[in-house]
Amino acid sequence: MTARPKLDFWFDFASTYSYLAAMRIDALAAEAEVDVQWRPFLLGPIFAAQGWTSSPFNLYPAKGKNMWRDMERQCAGLGLPLKRPSPFPQNSLAAARVAVAGREAGWTAAFSKALFAAAFGEGKSIADEAVLIGAVRAVGGDANAATSGARSEEVKGRLKADTELAKSLGIYGAPSFVTADGELFWGNDRLEQALGWAKGER
Amino acid sequence: MTARPKLDFWFDFASTYSYLAAMRIDALAAEAEVDVQWRPFLLGPIFAAQGWTSSPFNLYPAKGKNMWRDMERQCAGLGLPLKRPSPFPQNSLAAARVAVAGREAGWTAAFSKALFAAAFGEGKSIADEAVLIGAVRAVGGDANAATSGARSEEVKGRLKADTELAKSLGIYGAPSFVTADGELFWGNDRLEQALGWAKGER
Repeated sequence: MTARPKLDFWFDFASTYSYLAAMRIDALAAEAEVDVQWRPFLLGPIFAAQGWTSSPFNLYPAKGKNMWRDMERQCAGLGLPLKRPSPFPQNSLAAARVAVAGREAGWTAAFSKALFAAAFGEGKSIADEAVLIGAVRAVGGDANAATSGARSEEVKGRLKADTELAKSLGIYGAPSFVTADGELFWGNDRLEQALGWAKGER
Repeated sequence: MTARPKLDFWFDFASTYSYLAAMRIDALAAEAEVDVQWRPFLLGPIFAAQGWTSSPFNLYPAKGKNMWRDMERQCAGLGLPLKRPSPFPQNSLAAARVAVAGREAGWTAAFSKALFAAAFGEGKSIADEAVLIGAVRAVGGDANAATSGARSEEVKGRLKADTELAKSLGIYGAPSFVTADGELFWGNDRLEQALGWAKGER
């Protein structure tokens, strides 16, 4: 039996286009017969390293305005709800830590989808612990274990290391997709191509 | 007889993804039965106004590296040649003026395609007058008229006014597509959607 091809899905919970990818990737990966690893990371330190103090969508207002309009059009086309969280971007540190804490119990992907739906489908704050706990519970996770795990030095260190790894892979935005042979694809628009590449399509 | 829907195609000759859109738009627009107006403009002043002194692909090396890799993949998929012009980005002022000068004679679109092919398919310099004249001649334009037209105050003023118009439409990158009802789409990846929108698809 040959192992199924793998694709790493790197995302930040504050990222609008990560929401679209998170809502699309399971069905597309199942169809492509590719296994997806959900890899939360933090864009903040990567943006800060290139001199950005906020999201480029805030720093460059024309770009930001069109991003929200594009999100409206994309969500309408995909049949997804869209409610803009305020403030934008949300602080995604606590959310990313909870997602990392769920890795061993196996609920990282389901939690992440539930949280993205709450954040961009309902406009809820991902920095709000009640929202995080709600998403853990909604997918059958242990809320106490999630909360204490997210506060542990081990989880904090793993998220830091993963963010460093993302940077060393050349990642500069989210979502990004990386194949087993190190091919990097940036953006929700490249999801289909990344899945194809993972399967050997060139 | 109802008029065909229109779409404005805003591009900068130095822009990599404008090359892809320029090579794709005619066939797609013909199929969609949409009339395209080719609108050269200059990204430089728009970038400068937001504090950028060069292309973001140079200012942010990880982004630039992946852009070139993405271009390789996109061109391979489209069957287009790709040769990276040096330096990048090229100064596109003279090229844009020639393209504007060709509007009345009607060769702006054909010239633009020929020049994009020379620039990104062959790596030629679009700041080189011989390259510009070669592209004018290749599409049956009058090289003398193009050269004197490009140097006229009228053409210089029209290009400046068009760049101001682009900015006022909310354009912040190239390629961009704007429908008759003012809907703005950014990026080669949105070309199909922009054509659909021009036709009334929502």
